[in-house]
Formats: sequence, C-alpha cells, structure tokens
Amino acid sequence: MLNTIGISIKSSLINNNLLTQAIKPALVQNKYNSTFSKKYIKRRALFNGKGSEDRKILASLRTNADSIVFDLEDGVAFNRKKEARVKVFNALEKYDLGHREKAVRINCVSSGLAEEDLKSVLPSSKLEALVITKVNSEKDIHFVCDMIDDIAPENVRKNIRLIACVESAMSLMNLKSICTSDPRVDALVFASEDYCADTGMIRTRSREELTYARQALVAHAHAFNLQAIDLVCQDYKNDDILREECQEGKEFGFTGKQAIHPRQINIIQEMFTPSQKDLEYARRILDGFKNHTSKGIGAFVLDGKMIDQPVVRWAEKLISRA
Amino acid sequence: MLNTIGISIKSSLINNNLLTQAIKPALVQNKYNSTFSKKYIKRRALFNGKGSEDRKILASLRTNADSIVFDLEDGVAFNRKKEARVKVFNALEKYDLGHREKAVRINCVSSGLAEEDLKSVLPSSKLEALVITKVNSEKDIHFVCDMIDDIAPENVRKNIRLIACVESAMSLMNLKSICTSDPRVDALVFASEDYCADTGMIRTRSREELTYARQALVAHAHAFNLQAIDLVCQDYKNDDILREECQEGKEFGFTGKQAIHPRQINIIQEMFTPSQKDLEYARRILDGFKNHTSKGIGAFVLDGKMIDQPVVRWAEKLISRA
Amino acid sequence: MLNTIGISIKSSLINNNLLTQAIKPALVQNKYNSTFSKKYIKRRALFNGKGSEDRKILASLRTNADSIVFDLEDGVAFNRKKEARVKVFNALEKYDLGHREKAVRINCVSSGLAEEDLKSVLPSSKLEALVITKVNSEKDIHFVCDMIDDIAPENVRKNIRLIACVESAMSLMNLKSICTSDPRVDALVFASEDYCADTGMIRTRSREELTYARQALVAHAHAFNLQAIDLVCQDYKNDDILREECQEGKEFGFTGKQAIHPRQINIIQEMFTPSQKDLEYARRILDGFKNHTSKGIGAFVLDGKMIDQPVVRWAEKLISRA
Repeated sequence: MLNTIGISIKSSLINNNLLTQAIKPALVQNKYNSTFSKKYIKRRALFNGKGSEDRKILASLRTNADSIVFDLEDGVAFNRKKEARVKVFNALEKYDLGHREKAVRINCVSSGLAEEDLKSVLPSSKLEALVITKVNSEKDIHFVCDMIDDIAPENVRKNIRLIACVESAMSLMNLKSICTSDPRVDALVFASEDYCADTGMIRTRSREELTYARQALVAHAHAFNLQAIDLVCQDYKNDDILREECQEGKEFGFTGKQAIHPRQINIIQEMFTPSQKDLEYARRILDGFKNHTSKGIGAFVLDGKMIDQPVVRWAEKLISRA
Repeated sequence: MLNTIGISIKSSLINNNLLTQAIKPALVQNKYNSTFSKKYIKRRALFNGKGSEDRKILASLRTNADSIVFDLEDGVAFNRKKEARVKVFNALEKYDLGHREKAVRINCVSSGLAEEDLKSVLPSSKLEALVITKVNSEKDIHFVCDMIDDIAPENVRKNIRLIACVESAMSLMNLKSICTSDPRVDALVFASEDYCADTGMIRTRSREELTYARQALVAHAHAFNLQAIDLVCQDYKNDDILREECQEGKEFGFTGKQAIHPRQINIIQEMFTPSQKDLEYARRILDGFKNHTSKGIGAFVLDGKMIDQPVVRWAEKLISRA
Repeated sequence: MLNTIGISIKSSLINNNLLTQAIKPALVQNKYNSTFSKKYIKRRALFNGKGSEDRKILASLRTNADSIVFDLEDGVAFNRKKEARVKVFNALEKYDLGHREKAVRINCVSSGLAEEDLKSVLPSSKLEALVITKVNSEKDIHFVCDMIDDIAPENVRKNIRLIACVESAMSLMNLKSICTSDPRVDALVFASEDYCADTGMIRTRSREELTYARQALVAHAHAFNLQAIDLVCQDYKNDDILREECQEGKEFGFTGKQAIHPRQINIIQEMFTPSQKDLEYARRILDGFKNHTSKGIGAFVLDGKMIDQPVVRWAEKLISRA
C-alpha cells in the first residue's frame, strides 16, 4: 500500500516486506517446487515453424525470436503428421539455435496424437521446451509429464519447460490446477482464436470481450510464478495494431506475445524489452543483493528504500527479459 | 493455437483435436451427464408474461419469442401469488406454443414461496422449463430438482430444462457448482438489476462495471455446455441501444438476451441469429459428420481442414439457433 | 430479474425474496458469524498518518477522514519501526477521534515485523481496527487473530475490525478464503501499486488493466458482506481525476477509497456519500421494518413493493455511509 505522495511503481516495489533475516536461496523454494533461482527463459516472442516443411523450418531458424517452436499441430495436415515428426526430430538434433529456445508444439492430449508426437521428439537431448496445446486440466499436463519421465533423456527430463496453451472455457476453469500441476510448467499462452471458437465469442479490434479471460490468465500466471504469453495479432501487416496490442499486453502484465509472421518478431521483442532505466535500477538491486547475502544479510537498503525478496525477483526477471 | 496467417475463426475451429477414432455419441456424454446429442433449445429472446393477469398472459402468447415465460415472481404482487399460480397452470395446459418454449419463472427458494409455486405448476405435463430466480448456490437447484423428482409427471421430470438466474455476488462465487448441480440445468441468465442492487453497483450506459460478472458467467456457461442469456436493455424504446447491447452480448459469447417489452423481441432474435454464410458452412459440417460416422470414421476433412467433435458441436448449436 | 418496464434499481431491490415469516436478527447471522446487526463502520476515506513522526500523526488527526490509520508499514523506515510503535501506541491512548475510526496499519506477516507491531499496539484498549498489509492467504489473517486472542483486552478482542489489503496475484487467488477467514474481517482494500509491482502490470490512466482484479475484489467483498475500498488516486493535485476515479469506484460497487493526501479526503467522502433522495427512501424502509418486526411481521409492503431482508440491509448500509 501507498502512503507517500508521488511514489513511483519502483519505489513502492522496494519499500515492502522487510526481511529481518537473510534471504537464502533454499528458503525461496515454494510449495510448487519452483525455485527462486530457477533460470528465467526469455520468451518475448514465440514463433511457430511448420514441422512438415523444411522450408518453413529453415525460415523459422533465420528469425531471432526468443523461442523457436517446431509445430506438429495446426500447421501440419493430418496426413503429414508422421513425416513432420521425423523432420522435427532431425531439426532438433541438427540445428544450433544459440541463445534461442528450441521448442516443439504438440497436438493436444485429447486428440490421440500427442503420444506419437512425444515418442518422436522426447528422445532428442536437444529439446528445451514443449508447447502443449488445448490444456483443459492438470490431467493433460500429467499425461505429458508421465511420458517425459518415461522416455526423455535425463537432461531433458529435468530441465524441460512446459508451455501450456489456454484455448477453452474449461481451461479457464482449471487455471489454478494447471499452473500447479508440475514444477516444469513455465508459461501460459492465451490462444485467442480457439478460445473464441470454444465459447462462441467474436474477437473484436477492441479486445474487450477477452478482458476476463486474459486478465484471469495473467493473475494466475503471476501468482504461481509463470510467464504469461499474449494472443496473436492477426493483422500481421499492420505495425500500429501490433504495437497497440503489445503495449496493452505489457500493461496487463503479459511477459511476451505469440508471432504468426516473422515480421512481427522484432516489434514484439522491442516492445517487451525493459527500458534502459529500469534495467540499470534492476542491476543495482542484484549487485546489492549479492553483496549483502554474501555477508549473511538478506534485506538491505538502496537509495533509502528496503530491498527484499519480491523486489529481487522482479529485478532478476527484468534483466532476464532484456 | 494459430500458426498461419489470415486464418479465420472458422478455419481455426476445424483444424484441431484430430480424432483418430470415430466419435461415437456415447463417448460424448460428459461427467455432468449432459450429452452431446442433448437437444439445443433455441432461446435467443426470453420474454416474461405476468402470471396474475390474463391480458398479460395472452399478450405474451402473441409474441414470437423463442421462450415464453409465465411469471410468478417480480411481476406478481405478494397478495396475488395464489391466483397467479392457478392462472399459470391453466395457461400451461390450455395454450399451444408451437415451437416456442413454455416456461414458468418461480420465486426464489429462500423466499419460502418456491414450494407453492412448484406444487402448482409441476403437475402440468406441458411444462418445458423453469426459470429459477436468485440462485445463490447449488442447494437452490437441488431444492427444485427434489420437488421435480417428487411430483412432476415422468416426461417433465426427464425433459424439463432449468434456467438459473445469477442475481447476486454469492451466486457468482458459486457459479461452478451451480452449473454442475444437475444435468437439467440448461442456461444461465444474468439479472443485472438485482446484481447491482446486491453489490451496490450502479449500472451505466457503458456496462463496464459489469465486465467481470458477465464474462465470468459466459465462461462458466460454455465450460459446462450451457446457454448464457444476457441482461435486459432497460431503455426499451431505443433500438440503437438495444442493437448495441445485442452486438456486445454476441461478442462476449452470450447466446441470447432477456426482453422486457414485446418490441424488443424481433431485434434481439434477429441479432442473435447466425448469418447465412455461417449456417451453410455448419450444415456442410453436419452432413460430412453424418456421412463419415456412418462409415465408422469420426474425424474428417472438409475444405482441407480437419473436422472434429468441438467443431461439430459448434455447428449443431449454430443451426439450432437459426 | 426485471419484468416491468422502466423499473429503477430501487424498485427492483424491493420486489424480491418475499419472506413469509418475521425476519429475526438471530436468523440473519450467517455461516461466517457476521451478523445482520453488525454495526456498519463508515469508511468512505481511509487515510494513513506516518507513525514515526509526531507532526504527521497530528496532521492526520486534523483531517475528517472516516478512518484514521497510524502507519507502521511503508511510511516508516526500517530503522525507525521501534520508535514508531511507541509513538503509535501513545497516539492511540492519548487522542480522542470522536466518530472517526482509530486504526493501525501493520507490516505484513511474512516480513517478520508484524509480531512486534502487534505486541506494541494490541494492548491499547482504544484500538478499533487493524489494516493488514499484503494478505496473501487466510493464514495471514489467522496469525493476526491468534495474537489478538492472546494479548488484546477483551473489548478489542471482540470488536476489532480487520481491513485486509490485496496486494498480489496470490492474494487474488485466495480471496474467498481471506474473506471467510474470521468474522472480524470487515473490509478489503485494493492496493494497486503493489499489485502492479507483483504482477509486472503497468497502471494506466484508463485503469483497464485492473478491471479483473478490482471487480473480482468487489464481488468477493459483497458476497461475504465486507466493505470494498478502492485504489489510491496518485495524481493528488488533480481533482478531476480524483472525481472520475471516485465515480468509477462507486459504479463498480466500491464503498470507499484510500487517500494519500489530506486534500483528497473531502472529495472522496462527498463522492461516496449517498444522495438525499436515496437516504430518505432508506429511512422509510428502516422505519417500516422496525414497525413491522415489532408486530412479528418480517416482510412488508412500501409504496406497493415488498421489503425484505436484502433491502433492509441495503438501507442500513446506505444510512451508515451518510
């Protein structure tokens, strides 16, 4: 709560939760087994490349999207799924994406296709993330996790990140149990087109019809320390709308956005990059935190304000997104 | 999720959830015992006729509202409830409404009047639906269902549809348990005036104060396969506002709207009728589905897109609303 | 639900829930032990005075805010907490606030500072309310209540009101269990700045990013018969924005608003005061209710409309806020 005048978001951030003892990384592990020190994977833009076409796979590799997703779902026709699984496995093994995340989007569990998708890609030790479509409840996550635990190599099993797509009203009902279903869940995605189809909603330019769904998703994501990735901008030739959507998404608390065309990626990533001023401030927080924890002191004062755990986490995330 | 450019809502609808086996009607029965093949009752406009006045009952019969509701609640003064119950029972028995739904609106369970209302109208084998006012929790639905099971004729007991009115903040808290309280629950109604009175809210022309309540109601309705009927337009002489409200209601995912004056009915029903283009498309989906299921094949391709269960349900509903 | 034309909120309010027996105060006690006859504490404006500075404490006493809050949290630097606790205890004991509520804002439970705060102020028999910051779950309320039950004088233990601040996404997840954690919980406060920091949201002039959080808070508050106190208006020199925010807050169902500067208090209290017309109407309801309950009759007719329990409660609250 505020009680001084003209206080900025940043200053209000750092004047709370005074900790009288040292913040130890071990303490920060929460009941859902996500840890404070869990590495933040930058995912300002999430971009899909059709898994069934070499040309599309290569095109996606030429983008600088933070997260490159080889698609086995909507982008691949039913009679080309088999072929796509092989191509995607080969792409995982063959290409070095550097700092960019190497992900695969699988068909939804209820389709009956997810099992084959997983059997094909989980053996690759290069796989970093799975985008799970149409997650309706925690059971869909458990299905995928059971397969990971059964057949993925150890490094994948431990480190893989799950990105859960919210595409139905039922998914919205089960958000909490989806968020807490497994510590490997790392992000929620709002899939507006399928959400509208499921609910009979009509997507408008104002996006007002989606306020409840999008803001509920963001609240759940942050409560359980997950990323929140916003809807696609369908009008891919119109940079103004894209910027407007990015700005609103940031204001709503989203951490990134889906891209349907390579030309959207740069704008999205620019818009979801923190400002230089915020970054400098965050760096000073992390430096101070490092100095003080090494001396066994958890909370400390910076520019006359108390710095504690939530602020340090905010700073960590901000720098990871830069 | 989307991954191609310029995809429309319809195309995104049909490219998901590939089913490898046939969709059998039996499979579609969900845990709440509502079935895929449950008949969709068209309720674009819900119109109340005062149960205590023959003139009002007759006037309501002359409208073409999809759902004609004989009212025992707010429209009937306390000292005329008894008389109204007799009139409404007689109207149920006497008039043929053709394709229009024959419904009765009862006083809320907590009023102590619902029991007598139900004793009076449940014996009619012509009763098709009950509008239950001020449903605060699943207990209100259970009370009504127990009475139906005790005293309604078999055809009513099996086929009656329950339309639950959300009129309080507590009702919003309990939406999920209300939706899943009984398979006969078929629709939710948002009663804006009483909702505002209960919460101290002030209804404005922008309707922004109601975003959370209305959108939460729609999400719950669709998650549990119920209809969602929107608030009344109070300014019953202003067609522009009525159309604006209908348009927004459709965009939000509502399937119909309450009418307080007969002149609102035609506009509401026109606005909540699907377009010819959507209808043709839906008919082709149902035709294809029929052909393929008869051959034991569930999912099939139409215009190069996979058609599966959610799409078929969408098509069925759309046609039922026409 | 509405069924007549041109009905106003007030008339819709009073035509429902006909009670056939007398409303007895004992009946009105709900499952959360809050009672119908629980006194409504007027809190149109909530104003904090820094607990560490005599000058600020005195300044807050000179305001006519309904609720005067001596602050031990953000307004007090870490190294001055001890001193502030003494000053606040002395202020509680020394000053007579008349009709204004005498409250203390404590540091959040997870800070480790709340225990000392409570040990310092709970012994004062003059303490009327505690503002509990950063309530993340019902456990935070239980912690405070256990200390109240242990060390507060009997009159405080019984009558103290708890004002819970919602400042995080996790708090929003747990709203229901927070509202029902203890019968002494009397109000929720939306702390927008910390909420935005916790979720990475950016507060805008439109406040649209906060629709879900604010409206969810209001719905929960009213469902469990609590007050809902809205966000602060940061631009404390701009009366137009303050009035705009007050108007929106009222429309959303908030019962009051936080003030960060004394000059905001009068405008807030004026805006959150019911109109003369509403007040006269409410007085007639309470008079009628008194007359009829004394004769053993609960529900009664006023201006041709039935008056029942929810309407009487609405009238009581309205008059308390005047």
